[in-house]
Amino acid sequence: MNAGVTVRDVGEFGLIRALRDALPESVRTGDRLSVAIGDDAAVWTPKPGASIVVTTDSLIEDIHFRLAPGWTDWRSLGHKALAVNLSDLAAMGATPGLATVSIGLRGTERVADLIDLYEGMGTLSSRWSCLIAGGDIVASPAGFSLHITAIGELQGERILRRDSAKPGDVVAVSGTLGAAAAGLEILQLPPNDPRRTATTADLLVAAHLRPMPRLDLSPILLDGGATSAMDLSDGLFGDLPKILEASDVAARIDEAAIPVAAAVRALFPDRCFHLATRGGEDYELLFTAPPDRFAAIALAATGVRATVTPIGEIVARTANRPRLELLRSDGTVAPITTGAFDHFSTGSTPL
Amino acid sequence: MNAGVTVRDVGEFGLIRALRDALPESVRTGDRLSVAIGDDAAVWTPKPGASIVVTTDSLIEDIHFRLAPGWTDWRSLGHKALAVNLSDLAAMGATPGLATVSIGLRGTERVADLIDLYEGMGTLSSRWSCLIAGGDIVASPAGFSLHITAIGELQGERILRRDSAKPGDVVAVSGTLGAAAAGLEILQLPPNDPRRTATTADLLVAAHLRPMPRLDLSPILLDGGATSAMDLSDGLFGDLPKILEASDVAARIDEAAIPVAAAVRALFPDRCFHLATRGGEDYELLFTAPPDRFAAIALAATGVRATVTPIGEIVARTANRPRLELLRSDGTVAPITTGAFDHFSTGSTPL
Repeated sequence: MNAGVTVRDVGEFGLIRALRDALPESVRTGDRLSVAIGDDAAVWTPKPGASIVVTTDSLIEDIHFRLAPGWTDWRSLGHKALAVNLSDLAAMGATPGLATVSIGLRGTERVADLIDLYEGMGTLSSRWSCLIAGGDIVASPAGFSLHITAIGELQGERILRRDSAKPGDVVAVSGTLGAAAAGLEILQLPPNDPRRTATTADLLVAAHLRPMPRLDLSPILLDGGATSAMDLSDGLFGDLPKILEASDVAARIDEAAIPVAAAVRALFPDRCFHLATRGGEDYELLFTAPPDRFAAIALAATGVRATVTPIGEIVARTANRPRLELLRSDGTVAPITTGAFDHFSTGSTPL
Repeated sequence: MNAGVTVRDVGEFGLIRALRDALPESVRTGDRLSVAIGDDAAVWTPKPGASIVVTTDSLIEDIHFRLAPGWTDWRSLGHKALAVNLSDLAAMGATPGLATVSIGLRGTERVADLIDLYEGMGTLSSRWSCLIAGGDIVASPAGFSLHITAIGELQGERILRRDSAKPGDVVAVSGTLGAAAAGLEILQLPPNDPRRTATTADLLVAAHLRPMPRLDLSPILLDGGATSAMDLSDGLFGDLPKILEASDVAARIDEAAIPVAAAVRALFPDRCFHLATRGGEDYELLFTAPPDRFAAIALAATGVRATVTPIGEIVARTANRPRLELLRSDGTVAPITTGAFDHFSTGSTPL
């Protein structure tokens, strides 16, 4: 590679490929690493029958959150930092075990705020019996950052992977979509915008600040025979292509079936579909399942007060067909521009 | 706590205590977490007999390393970031299994440099069969950072803890001390200082930039009956007190026995003792063992081409005796000021 090429030139995904290739094959593949770089999490099998799932996520000030008044509070930040990691475990079908926390601090942070941060983390970890095992506190004069690594256990041999969706499978999502992105939009509205004080505004902001990992649904997908799953962090149209590419299949999605959150429809009537499909950070589960298994999964989901909605179908990949097609309400079929959010892209982003 | 109190006011260790107390007891203690916040690493036992050791370390630009010409190179940085985590596993008696890597990038970094970083990591991970399982790449406009979490396995029930040193035990260290701190001093010397071009300068700089984790020695300590161990990151007089406090004992160290590296004696005759005891980052193992077990450990160590040197003795803690005493070459006994390096201290540091 030309010595002057920068991270921005190759983008996030080009960089991931280059770095993976820089490692000896023996340390990034093999029997003990059944799912590696590229899925929601890594699956490590030190001994046959005892698999451990590992995932890590970093939150950087002014990139992933803002601590300015009117944005996130410290307790929500602690919740969310752990929630996004637990969501990755849910996407694999793993039960949370333990998390380590590293924080980079300017040194001028108020201890009371950091205690709030830990209390937010502690409440969520306690809900899911996830141990918090210390970590590392470092000086970071340039800004506050938070890095969490979560480790989960698999109860059997099965995993919810990304690379095993099959033509004919139903494509489905849990819950409703768009609330987290709409909550972020509300935080960015001018102070006098009436949507800021709408009855549902708090609900949407809460969806953005304190997403709930779908750990209750994950064993249902695993037991119910889901063929693939992932959690929605980059939006339906950003994330579904990752399953399609990993599984070498295509999909047709029914526009009318996408469960746009009602409050998003009400407050953002013109943008609700965009927010639901491109907005990101809903942390709902996107999954595929054979049609004859879907009904049982949907029924079992009601037992944990979750809804799952079929939104389309996996189809075979052919050369002259787009990876992802949308069946519009008017009966026409439109190709969907895929491509996930690139943190280093200099061009316009899907949002 | 008063709402205005900052991280700098309470310091690193005060903060750790406050954050630990902010978590529900159920998520930070219990049967499944046999070693938690405060040791080199956490020990998680999801099922009886199958313990996993987890450790995490962050390296922040301009705090832990400098990328300016004449300082570290990217390959060494990759090596060191992984080495300090593997050293924590060695300190617990664990075998490396898997590491996740998170990097925060400005976006202007050269891809070729990051490939060097990963190659440095890959070479070391390959040496110890440690898998590298992806991680997280995030935008970090304020500066480059690197966060590694390493997971290891314990072969049996035993762990090298910090809290089980006993009066009468020998205190010992592996290798020689002071080389890493001397290497850092060399990097800070004026360009025309003759010590920069001394025959041994490269060796000392390498000790600072590319420390080798003592993973070969760690099973010998475990099998040989060492009562406690930790790795030396904050210097002998910064780290030994952590064992003494955790074990509620005191120690007397023999000044003449401390294995100061020969090159450090030669290049820094006036400061060599300070560098060896307060300098830090040698990543040698500090351990305690009953006198009747020490000889066998020392003999076994030669099998992995390691030396271990007895430097003193654990004694009972009494109210009117300092935690750590130094038996000087002239026969006098001096108390040693303890206290580890505090990353948020506003006062002078032990270095």
